Amino acid sequence: MAKNQSKIKIIPLGGLREIGKNLTLVEYKNEILIIDCGLSFPDDEMLGIDIVLPDTTYLEKNKDRIKGVVLTHGHEDHIGALPYLLKKINLPIYGTRLTLGLLEAKLKEHKLEQKVHLQRVKAGDMFQLGAFNVEFIRSSHSIPDACAIAVHTSEGIILHTGDFRIDYSTVDGEMIDLHRLGELGKQGVLVMLADSTNAERPGTTMSESKIGVALENAFMNTKSRIIVATFASHIHRLQQIINTAEKFNRKIVISGRSMINVFEVGAELGALHVPKDILIDIREMDDYQDDQLLLLTTGSQGEPMAALSRMASNDHRKLDIQKGDLVIFSASPIPGNEKMVSRVINQLFEKGADVIYDPMAEVHTSGHACQEELKLIHRLVNPKYFIPVHGEYRHLKQHANLAARMGVPEENIFTMENGQVLEMNQKQAKITGKVQAGPVLVDGLGVGDVGSIVLRDRKHLAEDGLMVVVVTLDKKEAKVVAGPDIISRGFVYVRESEDLLGEARAEVQKSLEQCEQKGIREWSQLKNAIRDSLKDFLYQKTQRRPMILPIIMEV
Amino acid sequence: MAKNQSKIKIIPLGGLREIGKNLTLVEYKNEILIIDCGLSFPDDEMLGIDIVLPDTTYLEKNKDRIKGVVLTHGHEDHIGALPYLLKKINLPIYGTRLTLGLLEAKLKEHKLEQKVHLQRVKAGDMFQLGAFNVEFIRSSHSIPDACAIAVHTSEGIILHTGDFRIDYSTVDGEMIDLHRLGELGKQGVLVMLADSTNAERPGTTMSESKIGVALENAFMNTKSRIIVATFASHIHRLQQIINTAEKFNRKIVISGRSMINVFEVGAELGALHVPKDILIDIREMDDYQDDQLLLLTTGSQGEPMAALSRMASNDHRKLDIQKGDLVIFSASPIPGNEKMVSRVINQLFEKGADVIYDPMAEVHTSGHACQEELKLIHRLVNPKYFIPVHGEYRHLKQHANLAARMGVPEENIFTMENGQVLEMNQKQAKITGKVQAGPVLVDGLGVGDVGSIVLRDRKHLAEDGLMVVVVTLDKKEAKVVAGPDIISRGFVYVRESEDLLGEARAEVQKSLEQCEQKGIREWSQLKNAIRDSLKDFLYQKTQRRPMILPIIMEV
Repeated sequence: MAKNQSKIKIIPLGGLREIGKNLTLVEYKNEILIIDCGLSFPDDEMLGIDIVLPDTTYLEKNKDRIKGVVLTHGHEDHIGALPYLLKKINLPIYGTRLTLGLLEAKLKEHKLEQKVHLQRVKAGDMFQLGAFNVEFIRSSHSIPDACAIAVHTSEGIILHTGDFRIDYSTVDGEMIDLHRLGELGKQGVLVMLADSTNAERPGTTMSESKIGVALENAFMNTKSRIIVATFASHIHRLQQIINTAEKFNRKIVISGRSMINVFEVGAELGALHVPKDILIDIREMDDYQDDQLLLLTTGSQGEPMAALSRMASNDHRKLDIQKGDLVIFSASPIPGNEKMVSRVINQLFEKGADVIYDPMAEVHTSGHACQEELKLIHRLVNPKYFIPVHGEYRHLKQHANLAARMGVPEENIFTMENGQVLEMNQKQAKITGKVQAGPVLVDGLGVGDVGSIVLRDRKHLAEDGLMVVVVTLDKKEAKVVAGPDIISRGFVYVRESEDLLGEARAEVQKSLEQCEQKGIREWSQLKNAIRDSLKDFLYQKTQRRPMILPIIMEV
Repeated sequence: MAKNQSKIKIIPLGGLREIGKNLTLVEYKNEILIIDCGLSFPDDEMLGIDIVLPDTTYLEKNKDRIKGVVLTHGHEDHIGALPYLLKKINLPIYGTRLTLGLLEAKLKEHKLEQKVHLQRVKAGDMFQLGAFNVEFIRSSHSIPDACAIAVHTSEGIILHTGDFRIDYSTVDGEMIDLHRLGELGKQGVLVMLADSTNAERPGTTMSESKIGVALENAFMNTKSRIIVATFASHIHRLQQIINTAEKFNRKIVISGRSMINVFEVGAELGALHVPKDILIDIREMDDYQDDQLLLLTTGSQGEPMAALSRMASNDHRKLDIQKGDLVIFSASPIPGNEKMVSRVINQLFEKGADVIYDPMAEVHTSGHACQEELKLIHRLVNPKYFIPVHGEYRHLKQHANLAARMGVPEENIFTMENGQVLEMNQKQAKITGKVQAGPVLVDGLGVGDVGSIVLRDRKHLAEDGLMVVVVTLDKKEAKVVAGPDIISRGFVYVRESEDLLGEARAEVQKSLEQCEQKGIREWSQLKNAIRDSLKDFLYQKTQRRPMILPIIMEV
């Protein structure tokens, strides 16, 4: 133990081989520092799941050793799981102004705002947390106040880039602190953990400020209403939209709960500059001409419940799409959302709107570094060890390849998985173990009560539906006194399939009679007999395999 | 009636405002000509559905007026629904060699090969079918033997482009017959129906022959095994892969049922040139060095049951991924498949393979015309009326916009929907009615027996699972004699939720007692009481809404 204490441990609990739920631990001298604590969104297999959290069992078991949580920025995949962790362990939280502002709104939802201690820091700050000297370094991302974190220890410097890109002409004039990164590189960085999201993409990410030009072009010749959909958290984008609206004398109506939230938090903290009187209420829209109106809304991912989707499908109480409306999708579909977005675009066109979207115009850019930007960071920081983070395996792998091309020796690159423990000092680094890690599913109020069995059943039900068979038996003689009754859902349309269900019932009856003849009275055997006979019968008739639920009652 | 008979009717029964199930009717002098009869694949909402067919009720009702079916090419979305139609109506089928070759394999699967009359034609052929003089015109697409169809009538020419692109350096040397299209244009085309798939994309589609160069680059320095995944029907692509394998002295192992099928049909018909002895059996692989092997497989869309996916997830009986294997995805993900493809890429990388895919290299190109190619066709054909086909609404709309820019008067452009009837002659054209059209869902052996209610139930079950409540009542007194028993699936993990299910049971019991006190004996009322009490209880406890199935038995 004593020997290990002088080594640094890096333990990612989330964010590796996946997009989302970023959570990384740094351990040194028996103390733990947490960097970020995000959630992720369910994939297609996770039927009915609302959100996914990282497994924090390891943290709960070692809570006395944790010195605090430092946050790189305020996106859901970096702060969204914090309320759930804080319900279990109260910890001091360190973050920049906007990051904490967004977190506070979450803590309120979870009724935690009184309990948690938030410590505001700013880029450039450095402070001691146990064995860790933590430094916040200005970065550049699709949300303001984003930082990289350098953790200085007596064994060396750990640099976590957070999510970043390099933009030489930013919207707010704040530029990633390349000087400081270069200084650290010169001083010597033990290990770098860096954003891999766009490691597959050659070249550089288009400057965010170019979006402003594309927006102006779109606004220039438009006499109709303009509707812009984008990510609520993308404050730079919102600022550019506000600026363009102001330039073209359009009032802004905000729609969507998260968008309204961000306007409140952003304006209050000065992160968003909203000209006086530019915002109007939805009910005031009638007082203005079409060419005086801009509607700013959520729903850029085609989410069925978001304002834009509801407008497109005539399901919004207060807002309709008018013929001639110009709708701008100032966002690209996140992988997996393509079809939902496409559905909304189709509906908007069908309603007579004009729609501007990704392949048609430059109305979106990414917040993550492409290969040329990554190369610059690698060259500046020049770390001894490298861990690609924030990406699926394909992204981590491409980032690892890039690091090797930039001169990091292969054996010093660690393409890790969640839960792995990497121990290192100036002499060597190696994976030494594994702690509990994995997804914790949240469905409604339930955290972790939906596991693989429940999901497997949901998948089965989704694909083939269900057939319930109920039989009531006489307790003494095990004779059928009522039923078998058959109820099906999600299998066939019942009214057109009366014959099939009648035959199925006869099949069950036959199998029960055979059981009686053989003297089979054991419930589990009866249930198996029902299930087997029905399964074969239905597959032969329909080539489908509905879930079969035999239920036996006794009187 | 007599008046209408001199007009031409165009009735699309599929392929409009969707990708897939292309089926277009031309009616003239009371006779019907069918162009294509394809299927589509289910979207995310169609849980458990295998394939989707166009509704052919209108054709069944008017079968005596149908003169035949002409096929533009052999892709599923153009021929896949034919077996289902032919089971209902026997019709003569006209198509080119490969198109009919691929169709024959399908007819055999459906045991229809003896019954159906297939008439082989070739590009350039023109023949009379009732009132229609049908001309097949060589086109260019991602499958050989693709044709446009010109239908000559005494009222004018109808030109259907089929799926097409313009490629000046094709793999098989066969070029789209621009001369003939120009001649028709000069002669005067009444109406053109044209492929809209890539109407959103500026510029031109990259030449298919460039893929060969990219493949050679990939093969050049590879000493390991090479695995290429692509669409089985993409015969030009297969040819280029075969050619490259031959050049680099690699034997080819084919994997995947549809790939094997296409090799048989393609080689037999001379559409695919397979050098002698280049194909080897999977069992002979051990006789060769890694750098002498090429594995050609299905699964480029990440389909879980395809050979490549099974290899990637260790689920293939005979083939494993070896460390160092080079896997080339010579296909782009079809919208909606991105996540499945990504999963397979991740698994391949994790197994130590090297993977080449879309953003990394030019190993795929589209078979559909981009904007500059569409403009050329519009300029050559110069139709009086225009109907964009083969696309979602967004594609049709962009194609309509392009047609307008190319000089077709707005009022002569018809962005139709499936089932609409467009009547036209040289003087005017207008939508005059609607016939039955829509999706027919196929699930296992059932064609059309899964409708919106079944799908709604599957969605409900998929998201929140199910709770079955069974009670046995005494027939005379309506007293509970057994139960209530509660069985849940896909709701919560039962072992960890015994308390919740116990409370739910008590809740049902309470509601049954209340019914007894109130003298409620009607089954439907009892069921509603159970459902309502349980629904509220469960939502309050879990914020979930499982499907609740109350079942009452009587003894």
